[in-house]
Amino acid sequence: MKKTAIAIHGGAGTILRNRMTPEKEKKYKAGLREALILGNELLEKGGKALDVVEEVVKVLENNPLYNAGKGAVFAADGTHLLDASMMCGDTLKAGAIAGVRRVKNPITLARAVMDQSAYVMMVGEGAEAFAKQQGITFESEDYFFDQLRYDQWQRVKDTPMTILDHTDKGEKNFSTVGAVALDQYGNLAAATSTGGMTNKQFGRVGDTPIIGSGCYAENETCAVCCTGHGEPFIRSVVAFDVSRLMAYKGLSLEEAAKEVVMKKLVERDGEGGLIAVDREGNISLTFNCEGMYRGSMVSGGEGYVAIYGDE
Amino acid sequence: MKKTAIAIHGGAGTILRNRMTPEKEKKYKAGLREALILGNELLEKGGKALDVVEEVVKVLENNPLYNAGKGAVFAADGTHLLDASMMCGDTLKAGAIAGVRRVKNPITLARAVMDQSAYVMMVGEGAEAFAKQQGITFESEDYFFDQLRYDQWQRVKDTPMTILDHTDKGEKNFSTVGAVALDQYGNLAAATSTGGMTNKQFGRVGDTPIIGSGCYAENETCAVCCTGHGEPFIRSVVAFDVSRLMAYKGLSLEEAAKEVVMKKLVERDGEGGLIAVDREGNISLTFNCEGMYRGSMVSGGEGYVAIYGDE
Repeated sequence: MKKTAIAIHGGAGTILRNRMTPEKEKKYKAGLREALILGNELLEKGGKALDVVEEVVKVLENNPLYNAGKGAVFAADGTHLLDASMMCGDTLKAGAIAGVRRVKNPITLARAVMDQSAYVMMVGEGAEAFAKQQGITFESEDYFFDQLRYDQWQRVKDTPMTILDHTDKGEKNFSTVGAVALDQYGNLAAATSTGGMTNKQFGRVGDTPIIGSGCYAENETCAVCCTGHGEPFIRSVVAFDVSRLMAYKGLSLEEAAKEVVMKKLVERDGEGGLIAVDREGNISLTFNCEGMYRGSMVSGGEGYVAIYGDE
Repeated sequence: MKKTAIAIHGGAGTILRNRMTPEKEKKYKAGLREALILGNELLEKGGKALDVVEEVVKVLENNPLYNAGKGAVFAADGTHLLDASMMCGDTLKAGAIAGVRRVKNPITLARAVMDQSAYVMMVGEGAEAFAKQQGITFESEDYFFDQLRYDQWQRVKDTPMTILDHTDKGEKNFSTVGAVALDQYGNLAAATSTGGMTNKQFGRVGDTPIIGSGCYAENETCAVCCTGHGEPFIRSVVAFDVSRLMAYKGLSLEEAAKEVVMKKLVERDGEGGLIAVDREGNISLTFNCEGMYRGSMVSGGEGYVAIYGDE
């Protein structure tokens, strides 16, 4: 069996030990481990990278700990506006949705856009109409409710303030979820999903559904998912830049990720990080802030789950 | 005075001489020349690249010949869904809007997103609410009406078919508009705007409002605007790829544009082209289809306007 590899994240930011309890840490790490073990099992059984990243992101979307799907943050209008995207490194096909309401698993809608339409990206009510046509599962707004997210929103509601979920001082400082994988067939894939920023206004879209910025995959180089402050990530076309540094300058995955996250994004006040995997199963979990909820596992390995920078 | 340069386009595709009359050609070229001369004048007077590309795109949006602003194609619901983006090569700031209705000049809304918000991208009704708050000019749906666009839509309405405006057999085969410029201060900028595809459904978004794909600018390399079949352009992150080939492989602007448009996009069935300018005022007008409505002018020059590949 050829080597397989998976990496996941549940957001990055100012995640500090002194705001954590051992109990909370345990919960967060258990959520990551659950997703990671599922992904690794599917890959070891011969699952395709594209299917595996979708399944793993669904698990993270269904977990209210993370700001994606159930547990997504509140937008300014009191609803949950969901963004997601995915890309197949083999075919270079991609699917993305933005500003969608009440779709249980946004990543599955992104997958449907990719597989069942001639488009790459759909937004808003149009994307919801497509979801209905495709038989995608919707939930009531109540399904997405989370008390802590609601309390976060109440503090900034009716103000022009938005808060990056991960810089809020509350307990569940997550922002985005994502997964990248290498399967037995040498294929790479990336998938990412988010509820964006608490109290976001005006149909704001971050980097998550932007192919090239929040998500990119290409078998020749790597699969990348980003998490962080969306605006500098869009302007820096982060995911594709990592891929180009490998393709055009011959950098290793780790060198390319460091160049973009630890140099370029730092210069541009782009707080956050990324997860990435290359065709040889090398994994990079790189971030320029205090912490990133993250994990990785290669076939036959025990897996690694961590939160802070020194783990 | 330092050299200035501007390039514009009004769409690319299967533009054939045998479907043209001398009169139509004249009209199309006059529209391009008008925009080009304005852009060059503003640049020679000391205008900033960012302001100039906005003004030039506004002229093209206001001209019903082009599929942007007035004269935009009809979406499946009979409205006009407008996308636009722009980027400043000096600050790397960017603004983008997608799926917006009734905004007279979508590029001006993209500029407002860039200058007056903390966001890079807004979509749908949220973006419209922001436009209202900013005092952006709206028009009635009637303003955008164009008989030929309407007739094109009638032919595919109530079918699942969409048509790329430029591959339709009608007379006004335009698709997107765009402008890139170098000003006297060495700053680059790019701006692009479109109505997308006739009968597009489900809130489809093409490459035009995607920073990195349809639009990118960075003083160290180049400013790029794309026009063509949006989906392969998104998946190939075209505009940023041109910039990366210059930055990481040391290619010239023309070499980089050719590598992406004539090789990579051709392999990926990505019909279309791009306009680009670098910090030395070199201009590339590169396309892999029969024609591209295009023009360029450097300070003190006479300017160049063309439609077909052999001009």
